[in-house]
Amino acid sequence: MKVSQAFIPTLREVPADAVITSHRLMFRAGMLRKLSNGLFAYLPLGLRSFRKVEQIIREEMNGIGSLEIKPTVVVPGELWKESGRWDAYGEALMRIKNRVDADFVLSPTAEEAFTSLVRDELSSYRQLPLSLYQINTKYRDEIRPRYGVMRGREFVMKDAYSFHADEASLDEGYQAMGRAYRRIFKRCALTVIPVQADSGAMGGSGSEEIMVESEIGDNTLLLCKSCGYAANVEKAGCKSDYKAQLSIEAGTAVAQGTPALEKIDTPNVKTIEELCAFLKTEAKNFIKTLIYKAQNVELDLSSAPGIQRKPDAQEGQAYPEVFFAVAIRGDLDVNETKLTAFLKASGVELAGEADIQRLTGAPVGFAGPVGLKGIPLIVDPSVTVINDGICGGLAKDLHYKHAAWGRDFEAWNVTDLRTVKAGDLCPHCAEELYEKKGNELGHIFKLGDKYSVAMNVSYLDEKGKSCIPIMGCYGIGVDRTLASIIEEHHDEDGIIWPMSVAPYHIIIIPIKYEAAVKEAADSLALALEKLGVECLLDDREERPGVKFKDADLIGIPLRIVVGDKNLAAAKVELKARKEKESRLLDLDKAAEEVSRIVREELAVLNSSEK
Amino acid sequence: MKVSQAFIPTLREVPADAVITSHRLMFRAGMLRKLSNGLFAYLPLGLRSFRKVEQIIREEMNGIGSLEIKPTVVVPGELWKESGRWDAYGEALMRIKNRVDADFVLSPTAEEAFTSLVRDELSSYRQLPLSLYQINTKYRDEIRPRYGVMRGREFVMKDAYSFHADEASLDEGYQAMGRAYRRIFKRCALTVIPVQADSGAMGGSGSEEIMVESEIGDNTLLLCKSCGYAANVEKAGCKSDYKAQLSIEAGTAVAQGTPALEKIDTPNVKTIEELCAFLKTEAKNFIKTLIYKAQNVELDLSSAPGIQRKPDAQEGQAYPEVFFAVAIRGDLDVNETKLTAFLKASGVELAGEADIQRLTGAPVGFAGPVGLKGIPLIVDPSVTVINDGICGGLAKDLHYKHAAWGRDFEAWNVTDLRTVKAGDLCPHCAEELYEKKGNELGHIFKLGDKYSVAMNVSYLDEKGKSCIPIMGCYGIGVDRTLASIIEEHHDEDGIIWPMSVAPYHIIIIPIKYEAAVKEAADSLALALEKLGVECLLDDREERPGVKFKDADLIGIPLRIVVGDKNLAAAKVELKARKEKESRLLDLDKAAEEVSRIVREELAVLNSSEK
Repeated sequence: MKVSQAFIPTLREVPADAVITSHRLMFRAGMLRKLSNGLFAYLPLGLRSFRKVEQIIREEMNGIGSLEIKPTVVVPGELWKESGRWDAYGEALMRIKNRVDADFVLSPTAEEAFTSLVRDELSSYRQLPLSLYQINTKYRDEIRPRYGVMRGREFVMKDAYSFHADEASLDEGYQAMGRAYRRIFKRCALTVIPVQADSGAMGGSGSEEIMVESEIGDNTLLLCKSCGYAANVEKAGCKSDYKAQLSIEAGTAVAQGTPALEKIDTPNVKTIEELCAFLKTEAKNFIKTLIYKAQNVELDLSSAPGIQRKPDAQEGQAYPEVFFAVAIRGDLDVNETKLTAFLKASGVELAGEADIQRLTGAPVGFAGPVGLKGIPLIVDPSVTVINDGICGGLAKDLHYKHAAWGRDFEAWNVTDLRTVKAGDLCPHCAEELYEKKGNELGHIFKLGDKYSVAMNVSYLDEKGKSCIPIMGCYGIGVDRTLASIIEEHHDEDGIIWPMSVAPYHIIIIPIKYEAAVKEAADSLALALEKLGVECLLDDREERPGVKFKDADLIGIPLRIVVGDKNLAAAKVELKARKEKESRLLDLDKAAEEVSRIVREELAVLNSSEK
Repeated sequence: MKVSQAFIPTLREVPADAVITSHRLMFRAGMLRKLSNGLFAYLPLGLRSFRKVEQIIREEMNGIGSLEIKPTVVVPGELWKESGRWDAYGEALMRIKNRVDADFVLSPTAEEAFTSLVRDELSSYRQLPLSLYQINTKYRDEIRPRYGVMRGREFVMKDAYSFHADEASLDEGYQAMGRAYRRIFKRCALTVIPVQADSGAMGGSGSEEIMVESEIGDNTLLLCKSCGYAANVEKAGCKSDYKAQLSIEAGTAVAQGTPALEKIDTPNVKTIEELCAFLKTEAKNFIKTLIYKAQNVELDLSSAPGIQRKPDAQEGQAYPEVFFAVAIRGDLDVNETKLTAFLKASGVELAGEADIQRLTGAPVGFAGPVGLKGIPLIVDPSVTVINDGICGGLAKDLHYKHAAWGRDFEAWNVTDLRTVKAGDLCPHCAEELYEKKGNELGHIFKLGDKYSVAMNVSYLDEKGKSCIPIMGCYGIGVDRTLASIIEEHHDEDGIIWPMSVAPYHIIIIPIKYEAAVKEAADSLALALEKLGVECLLDDREERPGVKFKDADLIGIPLRIVVGDKNLAAAKVELKARKEKESRLLDLDKAAEEVSRIVREELAVLNSSEK
């Protein structure tokens, strides 16, 4: 392909709204243009790499027996109403009405479409497990699209959905998908961080996010350099940082030698900071108690004190609204995602002033675990090792000191609710954790029976009994994967494509495209193409410096320069984009040598060993 | 691929709403399922063939140097407002609003997106010609989607747009595209009919529709079996069916021997039928005169009599509304598409009663060319050979007889406006034309400067002068192409795939998948796959009859049956789907023989000779 015919409009300037490297380079390299905020068009060079990423994903999905299908992008709103997501999804769901006022959705994901297709065909256990995927256009009406294709409104996602008879089969499918994902990212030369993720509102157990490090990442990751532990902050755990983790059984941590509980007057002192100053002590000596309001709680509350309402049969036996007290060490933060997951709730929020007054008998700022009645108390393990703490006194301007877990108060439940921070200790090996920002490239997720129940999917088992299949869902963002490759593989001059996803394997630059140089360049290009090497030939009437700069910018992995001087000795100059040094090749052996390098680099990237 | 793992849910029953063969067979063969009216999901088998059609199109587009890009499916409404199509397109355009009330369009075609992308990058004549295409999701909010994917709401189209400096370059691109289209359809084993099409509302000259014959086709085609002439009825011409086509110059057809014009009283006789009965003659002896109202007429009317208004400078010098009288032989119909095209109008319609009264001085039914003043008269050539006709007398209950062209009346313009019918004579060779219904698979079209003017595209020519490029646009419906292949290649048992687009090349059917038969079938499948032959293996525990029926239904081109009896002689049975007879192959040579057949059939379909 000649550069003059390839429509690669490179730019010297950086577009004003491009703040991250991949966005800047995709524009400058003529890979991408903007149609509107969050809507981008891939130009020929960009699309070539895009299609290669797609094809790698397709091959690895096919490799684990997942079958490609193609539902529509526009999906009937009815299906989303069946699943409940029509109401639950929020404003990012692009809802549209057709000319006769029927509801449709521009798919952001496709659980409904896949579940409905399988529902109509599934009859026997013999058809399970079944794994289906698509690589198709998705749409999210992002309120603030940014970072180029890293967070666009329209994007392409590979989304797969699997259907299983039992947990063992789901786990097998989930593990196979995980292996496929690792191969996909390896073939794309991406360094990824698989992290245990909270499963969020989707409900279900078993979930892994495949992240790449990114300064503009949406996710905070807690990582251990010693044992490789990696978790999203939403789910990260940590070892207690007290010397000994005492038993969390209430009553066993007897506060030997701790003075008896004592009231202290704290006029107008409400926050932990004010209390620290007032009492000249540190936050970690406080027991912080927060009152939370939770919605649609599915956790069994039959043993919990003071439950205000009954479960709602309509909502699948969820409690529509329940208040909880949560106690945690004063210097730590409650992780509301953990709390939501523990309660199996649809959401939690801090209670308002009136509710706090009603439930604690005191205004905001004086809640505490000692003497608290009529509301379930959940404590973080950090509280169970406090045997001489300060806490709210359940009355205006009153606190307690010398409060001890197991002696002065007990809890309805003890569970990890702590937001882990850099410097906390790895839950596996007790090494200090460090933080990184990450962007999610892929997500594998055990979905359970959420959609198969809501949408009435069933099959007959060996004995003819009607059963409900369980599901997994698995996504990879194609655009984001492509952008992430550039984030990882570039230098100050431009992109440095890994061979597997390079738009072309090599670029031939004739110093001046005429006479013997033109002839040599043309025949080399022809020879390379015959060997299956994808070749760009810069035939433009530009100064060599301009051609070199463009070649570096668009990041073609190999470059051959054809010039009069070397050609006199029947030589051409080969340079790899990622290396500083060039070397001379015999003109008549150049095509073969390049083909060997290309095949070798592809083989390394595509090898299945990890 | 084993059939048990391929998710091919074949059906014995025909879905109630499937009225055409391809729709029925795509459902029965488990290729397709319906998500909603006009919205279909391709299942694995269907998608494999779909992707092959896509790939054939891609290869041939790349082969003529067109470059693939990928704009978004959702496109800003602003671009459509610029081009004017936001208002002009009608209700089939799916207009959507995002969360902040901005307008978007679900692309039905992409003139705007491509023009806007090129506008931003085009600066010099050196960049022209430029040909870009996409293969992407399209949406039309069809009021009555039907015939399965033949006319769905969401579909995939390959649409290409080319940009040129001059007519010669546009014509070259247009011809190249035509050749690529012929190769594409040849590779898909489709018998197509390229027809000259009217260019409709798009404006521009040069347009060819590539049709397939179809009983449910939207288009009526006029075809000549002698010389190969083919035209859409909207544009078809024909030879006069009078013995001698006289000169159409007014006054030269002297009606020698024709009696003088004579008034006849025709009380309450208005229609041609009534007149025929009243005068005991045939419709072909009448001169039918119709009054039309035309909108936005761009034809030069400076010489036309009685023009009511001036051109509107705002509308690019079009006449907003003009009335015309049109005369044609009584047994023929005026083709309004031809009339619209001749007038360069946005539309024409028959005038209402009041306008007819005002313009002809008589109520409806008595218009005629003799003595008609103050309105431009356009006559079809059929009128110019009438030297003794009957026509309206411009007064209530009055007609003329013995009216003769050139003696009793003249015209402002003579042009072909006749709706051609089966039995009319081919305009090239005078053979009788016959009619067929056709469906459009592709369309190549010289668009001219409509979009480049409306959207302000320009470039600098060799002398630094700012110029406006002209454009072509070229579409192929991928879904419709796939369905048309089935329409052409099937029998009462199912599909008969051409090798190039078959989901698999061969299906192996073990009579009973166990013991030696299983072993032979497995190793044959492995050997075939190693040779690059795409192989289905029916491993199901079904009766052989069920497997044979399914294999015929899904239409795999080759079938090998492995059974104990033949296996005892180290033989297997090969049968081509399109043939009645089977033959025995040596088991150890079967893979090679099949591979040879597959390669040969692919080579024939892919060969470039036409």
